[in-house]
Formats: sequence, structure tokens, C-alpha cells
Amino acid sequence: MTVTVRQLADWVRGEVLGDGDLPIADARPLADARPGDITLVDDRHLGAWHACPAAAAVAPPSVPVNGRPLIRVADPLMAFAGIVQRLRGRPPLPAGTVDPSAHVHPTAKLAAGVSVGPFAVVGEGTEVGAGAVLHAGAVVGRGCRLGADVTLHPRVVVYDDCTLGDRVVVHANAVIGADGFGYRFQDGRHAKVPQLGWVEVEADVEIGAGSTIDRGTFGPTRIGAGTKIDNLVMIGHNVQIGRHNVLAAQVGIAGSSTTGDYVVMAGQCGVADHMHVGDRVVLGAKTGVITDIPPGTRYLGYPARPEGLKKRVWVTQDHLPEMRRDLKKIKAALGMEEAG
Amino acid sequence: MTVTVRQLADWVRGEVLGDGDLPIADARPLADARPGDITLVDDRHLGAWHACPAAAAVAPPSVPVNGRPLIRVADPLMAFAGIVQRLRGRPPLPAGTVDPSAHVHPTAKLAAGVSVGPFAVVGEGTEVGAGAVLHAGAVVGRGCRLGADVTLHPRVVVYDDCTLGDRVVVHANAVIGADGFGYRFQDGRHAKVPQLGWVEVEADVEIGAGSTIDRGTFGPTRIGAGTKIDNLVMIGHNVQIGRHNVLAAQVGIAGSSTTGDYVVMAGQCGVADHMHVGDRVVLGAKTGVITDIPPGTRYLGYPARPEGLKKRVWVTQDHLPEMRRDLKKIKAALGMEEAG
Amino acid sequence: MTVTVRQLADWVRGEVLGDGDLPIADARPLADARPGDITLVDDRHLGAWHACPAAAAVAPPSVPVNGRPLIRVADPLMAFAGIVQRLRGRPPLPAGTVDPSAHVHPTAKLAAGVSVGPFAVVGEGTEVGAGAVLHAGAVVGRGCRLGADVTLHPRVVVYDDCTLGDRVVVHANAVIGADGFGYRFQDGRHAKVPQLGWVEVEADVEIGAGSTIDRGTFGPTRIGAGTKIDNLVMIGHNVQIGRHNVLAAQVGIAGSSTTGDYVVMAGQCGVADHMHVGDRVVLGAKTGVITDIPPGTRYLGYPARPEGLKKRVWVTQDHLPEMRRDLKKIKAALGMEEAG
Repeated sequence: MTVTVRQLADWVRGEVLGDGDLPIADARPLADARPGDITLVDDRHLGAWHACPAAAAVAPPSVPVNGRPLIRVADPLMAFAGIVQRLRGRPPLPAGTVDPSAHVHPTAKLAAGVSVGPFAVVGEGTEVGAGAVLHAGAVVGRGCRLGADVTLHPRVVVYDDCTLGDRVVVHANAVIGADGFGYRFQDGRHAKVPQLGWVEVEADVEIGAGSTIDRGTFGPTRIGAGTKIDNLVMIGHNVQIGRHNVLAAQVGIAGSSTTGDYVVMAGQCGVADHMHVGDRVVLGAKTGVITDIPPGTRYLGYPARPEGLKKRVWVTQDHLPEMRRDLKKIKAALGMEEAG
Repeated sequence: MTVTVRQLADWVRGEVLGDGDLPIADARPLADARPGDITLVDDRHLGAWHACPAAAAVAPPSVPVNGRPLIRVADPLMAFAGIVQRLRGRPPLPAGTVDPSAHVHPTAKLAAGVSVGPFAVVGEGTEVGAGAVLHAGAVVGRGCRLGADVTLHPRVVVYDDCTLGDRVVVHANAVIGADGFGYRFQDGRHAKVPQLGWVEVEADVEIGAGSTIDRGTFGPTRIGAGTKIDNLVMIGHNVQIGRHNVLAAQVGIAGSSTTGDYVVMAGQCGVADHMHVGDRVVLGAKTGVITDIPPGTRYLGYPARPEGLKKRVWVTQDHLPEMRRDLKKIKAALGMEEAG
Repeated sequence: MTVTVRQLADWVRGEVLGDGDLPIADARPLADARPGDITLVDDRHLGAWHACPAAAAVAPPSVPVNGRPLIRVADPLMAFAGIVQRLRGRPPLPAGTVDPSAHVHPTAKLAAGVSVGPFAVVGEGTEVGAGAVLHAGAVVGRGCRLGADVTLHPRVVVYDDCTLGDRVVVHANAVIGADGFGYRFQDGRHAKVPQLGWVEVEADVEIGAGSTIDRGTFGPTRIGAGTKIDNLVMIGHNVQIGRHNVLAAQVGIAGSSTTGDYVVMAGQCGVADHMHVGDRVVLGAKTGVITDIPPGTRYLGYPARPEGLKKRVWVTQDHLPEMRRDLKKIKAALGMEEAG
């Protein structure tokens, strides 16, 4: 499929500067673009654009013309994404097809346009909203409710009694609703506390590959609307995550902790159990939270400390060996005894 | 289903204080309870109980009557769990049903009452003990032995030659027996050392969703009886975990390390290879172990240090910038040269 | 199956010292060996070999005879592996068998000798190279290319448009090509940036159980030839991993970062987004990289620091409380005011 710069501009309602009749072979990002491609440029990468063999670019108004055709748009990222999608994106699975190998319980209710891939399983009494897509091998337990346009990628597992809001997307091999990690020590053994709650994932949440969200002990573990969760994240039982949080990869949040709205946690953060992380808190990578964190703050390190303090501590830390040597000299100069 | 306080008390052999004829609609924890519910109270949460709209509560003898009916029992947590289970728990899968879509090798031996879900796979020569349940899509390789009442949740994968003791529970998407991470550097490449061992999981172990336990190189990787492992935990090849350990989420234990009995590791701990962590050691969250840890101790931080020392270091650390300023002033006062 | 020491020596082209006619029952490592077994010895474990009940051993020339037969070989590890494999290894799946329950799209192309296990799925237009093995329940999307002798263990998921080079091995429940974690904050919500790229895994890469490698935004996420990735590792979108890297368990590499060749990262390391880790860098366990790391260096800690410096800081750190006490005494002795 070959198209011209002008056709691409029409797709994304952009303005053509330069030769609109130039044919375009493919769309690739700056680092990978080849002759004949269209690419994506912004003002931070003008040097790379200059050196890039691409034939044309999608660009914001701030990028100057340099002899090659440009498609000018207000939102180049989404325009370029639209072009890539049109040039080599794959069609969604056909709506409303249930693979004959899927195992849908006779009491389950699939709304209009639900697609179910091969070897998927839908349990007793579960309801799936209009337009939802359950890819190959997804397993949904008994008594679950999935909203409209939910997407479960291959091999996702949703245990009994969990609810997923509209437009929730769950990536491959994530697990929603496994038992919380609850035991009591009795007679020399760890006796299991039954985990009888469920998970409520609100609308517009996305959950990354391999992440696990445990069910509550008696009530819900809840993920607030609009929250985005990366891969290999662990959310413990009874946790209540607020709305529009961003939890990067490998974050772990222990049982019964809560977060406000618009919280951001960078990769590999950990939050101890029964903590509260306030609205709009930002935690740097690998931060370990063992106290409540006040709203609107930025924390770093383990144990978590305010960002400004922690950065000063980190800088000073490198001087520790010389500080200790200095102390010894001073004590010698002052005739102070060495302890021990 | 509506029942009275007295009926609930009968189920859990509790004593009714107050109106035993009051009908109860549902059972929910304190934070979620609604009018008409029964809830769970202990002495630490009397204020919340006072403010809670629930109609009644399960409580220990120490909780005073406050006008609403109580069910007094010695073990309120397990009594409440019993009530929740009766009110809205789901029945187990029917014993002894093998879904026709499951793929059980003709040489595999399933004992009485084994249930196998849709699309599960049981390999050549594998033996499965009485009452075991293999949920949808679980895959068990060749030559495995699974004890009585083992539960494999959906999509669990057990590689060839592994053994799971009685009552072992493995949550969704966990992987038992993948190859250990063993290579030798030769001629500019990492040459694989064949991983020909297996995994032995002893009785009463529970393994969380998405966790991985690698097979030994030539012999077993072993998980001791009664040990509980949370989600997304990694146990390397040849590791020997003792009995009744508790390993919280995202812990990683590198190859050939060993632990004693009753060890507790909080979330995101890491143990380097060939280390030993002694009996009854407690490691705080995110602890990084790079030396052996003596029995009966508590360690924190990275590198792991005794808890008391590490807490003092953490407190002092925040003062590092001011300590450095003080040092500079002292050196100036004493006329000492600034190094460098 | 019982064989003699001499037969074993013939298998591995080793030299027999002592009684070649001795029958051998099994092959187990030093710690597990029983009477009648052959075991593996090197010079570092002569004491353990002395105390071991095994009947014979595979050993390098440096190990002295001690009355029991030895098989001397230049490479005892691989010779012993060969013996274990012959004595109790399992045959590979028969080449060229496609289980009738597998779901192979009519447009997919399977080369000669490809094996596909039960409930596996191969998508539209995907090509699978000669000798590849797709175990039970593996899911490969549309338009993928898998090289010769690729192994996908059970339940691996490969999203659309990804490529895996010759001899790539992917362990159970790993996910290749899920969406990158890309959002833009607009109007109070996190709006998804479409993830339209793919993953390229070059030849001879091994990927551990439960690991996730996200697709690029518009182009490739790339894993260089010969790189070995352990379990539960997360590789973000657009990342470019060099050749022959070793990434231990639970490492996380955030979006758009790159590594050189022969990089080694120990367990639970994290690399922030848009960083570069140079050729032959070695990162200790739990290292957190938030700056570029120069080639040929060794780094530790968080934030990552050169190994020598960081080790000195770690040692000094334990003295912080006494250093602070000393400072107070010195200030008192000098009549300096306490700040605050």
C-alpha cells in the first residue's frame, strides 16, 4: 500500500507544506525511519530529523520546513499514531464472534457484540457487557460482571465474583482476584484466613501483563476509575487505589493500604500494609513507604523521605568515608578518646 | 437468603447478646457494612463499630454491648469467615468431574474425586492424588506427582518431574519447574548449563499468583512444608526453603540459597545466591541479603543490617547534610585544611 | 536402567580411574547423592566428596583418586549433565506433531518439523520456523515470525507482529509484545498513546518464566542476540538491549533505555527510562540506575554509584550514629552552638 503525503494529511486533517504528491512507503519513528518513510518530529529532535533519511514528517507548527514535505498538525503524536494505525495496524477481532472451542457456561450472559477467542472460559452466572473482547484462553470465573468494551488479552484470569468497569483493558497473564495473603500463626503453623471478598476495577483502568490484584478478605479490593497499572505490579488484599493513579512496573502495595487520586508511583516502589498515600503524591523509583505520605508531596528512597531532603542526603552520602576520616583527625587534634 | 442473628450464632456456635430474631441481609467488614448487615468487630475498632450502620456484629468477649445484637465467640475472625462463606461463598467444583475438553494423557493416573477443568493438560505418567482440583487451563507436565487435595488454579504451569505435597495450593499463572538461570561464559557467549533437576513442594504450601519456582540443575529445588509464598515471588534453582516460611510479594531468592524454618521475609526482599538465612529470621521489606543471616535475628536494609543498628542509621542519615556543614565549620575553626 | 562406570565414561569420552565395572544406579549432585550413585566433583568440594556416599564421580584432572572410581574429563559439568540427561532426561516432544486441539490459522505457515501442543493458538499470517516447539496453550498472534528451533513453553503469549530469532527459548507464562505503558495527561485523565510497534528478539535469547517485554510505541523493542533474561523481568517499550546481556530475576528496565553488549544486571535492578548502560557494565543486585553508566564499569546501590565508592560508603554508614554523637561532643568541646 503506497499513499501520498497529501492522502496522509487528509487522514489526520493536517496541513501539507511542500510536495504533497510524494509517495510514502511506511511510517517509522525517527530512529528507525528509512528513505521513503514518513516520520514524527518535534522541536526537541531537530538535529535527528536533519540526519534522518525519511522522506517526510508529521510535525508541530514550531518545526521549520527544511526542504522535505511536512504535515503540520496541532497534535503530531496522535496524528502519527493514526497514520501508523492506518498503514499497518491490524483490524480488531470481528465483533460478536464466539469461537466454537470457547467454554461459555449456559447461565453466562454475553451482551451484543461480545467476542470470545479460542479456549476462553466464562463461568456460571457471569455477565459480559456489549462489545467486550475476551482473547484466546482468558478465564473468567463465576458471578463476575464485565462492563462494555472490556478487553481481556490472552490468558488473563479473573477469579469468581470480580467486577470490571467499562473499557477496562487487562493484558496477558494478569490475574484478578486471587486469594489475599492472609494467615494467622497458630500451633506452629500459618493457618489460612479465608479470602471471601472480591475485586472491583472501575471504568477506564488498564492493567499490565502479569500483574496481580488480590481479592479482599471479606469485602472489595478496589482500583479507582482511570488508574493505569503497568506490568508485574502486585496489589494486595483490601487495598483501595484512588482514581487516575499511575503505578509503574513492579510496584507492590501491601494489604489494606489506600491511595488518593492522581498518585504516581515510579517503578519498583513498595508500600507497606495499612498505609495511606495522599492525593497527587509522586513517589520516585524504588521508594519504600512505611509511613503515611501527606497529599501533594514528592517522596524518594527507603524509608521514603521528602524528595528535597533525600536528594541532599544522597549527595552527602558519597562523602561519608572522607567525613569519617575528618572526624578521626579532629578527635585526634582535640585529644578526644576513640570510643571502643 | 435472609437469616436471623440466632441462626448465624448457631452456625458458628456463638452466644447471642440482644435481639436474636433480628433478620440479617449480608455480612460485610466494618468499612463496607450497610444497614441490615452483620459485621466483624474487635476491641481495636470500637469507634468504627460505634459509627458503623451495621445491624449486628460478631465480636470477642471483650467488646461491650452497645444496644445492637452481638454474637460472642472466642475466635471472631474465623466465625465471621464461616458466616460469609455460608451467606455468599461459592460451592467448590464438583468432585470427580473431568471436563471433556481436558487433555489427560492415557498413562496419567487420577485418584478418586479428582476434578479437571476445561483445557487443562496432564502429562504422561503423572499421578494426581485424591480430591485434587486442576482448574481451567492448568498444565502439568510428564512424570509429576501431585498429592491429595492439591489445588491448581487456572493456567498454573508445572513442568515435568515436579512433586507437590498434599493440600498444596497454587494460584493462577504461577510456574513451577521452569529452567534455572544457569549459564557459563565461553567463547564470547553464555552457554546454557542444562537444568535437569526438579521442584519438590512439600505439604500445605501455598504459592501466590504469578510466582515462579525454578527446577534444580541436577537435583531438587525444595519448598518446606507449611511455607506460604505470596504473588510474583521468584525462587531460583537449587534453593532450599525451610518449613513454615512466609515470603511476601515480589521477594526474590537467588540460586542455591537456603532458609531455616519459620523465616519471614517482607515484600520485595532479595537474597543473593549461596546465602543462608537462619531459623526464625525476620527480614523487613526490601531487605537485600548479601551475607549469611544468623538465626533468630531481624535484619533491614540493603545491604542487610541488624534491625536496631539499621533503624539508628536511618534516623541519623537525615542529618547527613547538617553533619557535613558542621564538619566544615569545625575544620575551619581548627584551621584544618580542606582535602582536595 | 543400570549401567557401569565404563559405559558412562564412554558416553562422555572420559578416562576411567579405578573399577570401571562398578554398576551405577543414578546420578545426583554432591549434596543429594546416595550409595550407588555417580556424582560431580571439583577441587573446591573435595571435603564434601570425601564425606559423600556416592560410589563414583565425574571429576576434572585436578581431583585426586581416593579409592572410588573417577571419570576424568576436561569439562566435568557438561559431562555430568550428559550423563544425567541420558539416565533420566525426558525425550523432546516428537517433531512435527500438531495436536488436533491446537488452533492454527489457515494462513499460518508451519515449517517442517514444527510441533504444536494442545490448546495452542497460532494467528493469521504467522510463520513458524523448522523444528520449533509450541507447548500446550502457547498463544502466538497475527503476523509473527518465529525462527527455527524456537521453543515456547506452556502458556507463553506473543502478541501480533513480533519476531523471535532462531533458537529463542521462552519459558512459561512470559508475555512478549503487550502494550507499552504510554499515556499523556489531558483533561484530568491519562489518555493512552497507541502502542503500534513490535518486539524483535534476536537469535539465541532465552526469556524466563513470567517475564514481560512490551512492544515499542511505533517501532521495535529489541533484545540483542545471545542475551539471557531470567524470571519476572520487565522490559519496557522501545528499549534496546544489546547482545549477550545477562539480566537476572525481577530486573526492570523502563521505556526507551538502551544497553550495550555483555552487560550484567543482578537481581531486582531497575533502570529509569531513557538511560544508557554501556558495554560490559556490571550492576549489583537491587541497583537503581538514574544516570547513564559508562562502559566497562561496576555500579552498586540506589542511586547507582561506582562499586568501590559505594562499598566504602556502605561500611562507613554503619558508623553514622557514633559519628553524630562525636560531632555533638566536638561541638560542645569547641563551644559551637547547636543549630535549631
